[in-house]
Amino acid sequence: MPLEIPEVVINRLPLYARALAELAARGEQVVSSQTLGEMLEVTPAQIRKDLSYFGRFGKQGRGYNVQLLLAKLREILGLDRQWRVIVVGVGRLGQAIVEYGGFEPQGFHIVAAFDADPALVGKQVGRIRIRSVDELDEFLRREPVDIGIVAVPARAAQEVIDRLVAAGVRAILNYAPTTAHVPPDVAIRHIDPVIAMQSMTYHLKLRQGTSAK
Amino acid sequence: MPLEIPEVVINRLPLYARALAELAARGEQVVSSQTLGEMLEVTPAQIRKDLSYFGRFGKQGRGYNVQLLLAKLREILGLDRQWRVIVVGVGRLGQAIVEYGGFEPQGFHIVAAFDADPALVGKQVGRIRIRSVDELDEFLRREPVDIGIVAVPARAAQEVIDRLVAAGVRAILNYAPTTAHVPPDVAIRHIDPVIAMQSMTYHLKLRQGTSAK
Repeated sequence: MPLEIPEVVINRLPLYARALAELAARGEQVVSSQTLGEMLEVTPAQIRKDLSYFGRFGKQGRGYNVQLLLAKLREILGLDRQWRVIVVGVGRLGQAIVEYGGFEPQGFHIVAAFDADPALVGKQVGRIRIRSVDELDEFLRREPVDIGIVAVPARAAQEVIDRLVAAGVRAILNYAPTTAHVPPDVAIRHIDPVIAMQSMTYHLKLRQGTSAK
Repeated sequence: MPLEIPEVVINRLPLYARALAELAARGEQVVSSQTLGEMLEVTPAQIRKDLSYFGRFGKQGRGYNVQLLLAKLREILGLDRQWRVIVVGVGRLGQAIVEYGGFEPQGFHIVAAFDADPALVGKQVGRIRIRSVDELDEFLRREPVDIGIVAVPARAAQEVIDRLVAAGVRAILNYAPTTAHVPPDVAIRHIDPVIAMQSMTYHLKLRQGTSAK
């Protein structure tokens, strides 16, 4: 049954969890789908529909119990767990990823980082020593890894992702500016600021009209 | 008429443009919706439907002319233009953004960067000297800016975004891990690796079953 939940719904759940954590931190005990909707710019009807996939959380007209719903979402999403993460590609972007302080508090523990550049191998980035990408396959045979973050150049991305998938990594966060492919049993998300900006310039251009061409 | 195009369609157009640019670079002259669909993991029917919003690009059974369709998409998305971008928040992440080599070739020109930390102000990052965020409003009165990239801590994001919007910036790329709000005539996109990973742990957890709890 949980397999039938649409991907767009699953993608919204972490946003619900984050908003509920904010409400809990403020001491709120109950929240309406209206209020949650305003926080997230989702319609209340959408929120009720999304959450209905996972059971009955709210009493009609009473709103949702913040702590209960948050606990349930954290369980559904596995947010109460530690996840082991590696980073492949430790150039400027990869270094910023390794040193980013936002992953650890959310249970994403970076256990190793790899690069193909001999000049980078052995270098220390925060608490991580960069390993050669030649050690990747052996590392993955030895150590369990949940998520692979790929921050290599576009031309190298598919090969790196194939190696991660072949070694059993089942979730890929791809920062390389290319559409990489994974088998159906592997999850992949793309982080691409250029694509995000290009979808906004459509609106900017419309607004500025043809005179600005 | 162009205003009625669904946002999900607009968000896919830059991916079509990137795939077509790859095909053009390889010397391909014609592409079928099947091939394009395989490159992007979108169904051929979806591609035909998306592109039909903008006119008739393909002849039935003949595929799309790569160069013509690419040129049209570049025009629609404003990819043939230079866009002026500023970065607010130049900590580790902001510095990686300023130094990222992928923006400039796509027409996104970073013209200034701002931070609230006096220790950072005046520091050089690549070709950009970091300015005090106190200069932000005056800078925006003087200089045209198309896109504001926000890489400040979550608690500061909404205030910074409000200042950008008040000064006339009409597109925001938000890296702060929070759901920030903008008026309906402003475009916003969120780049959030934690949210992306949390939507994948749902799948990881399902796959690992209850034993791994």
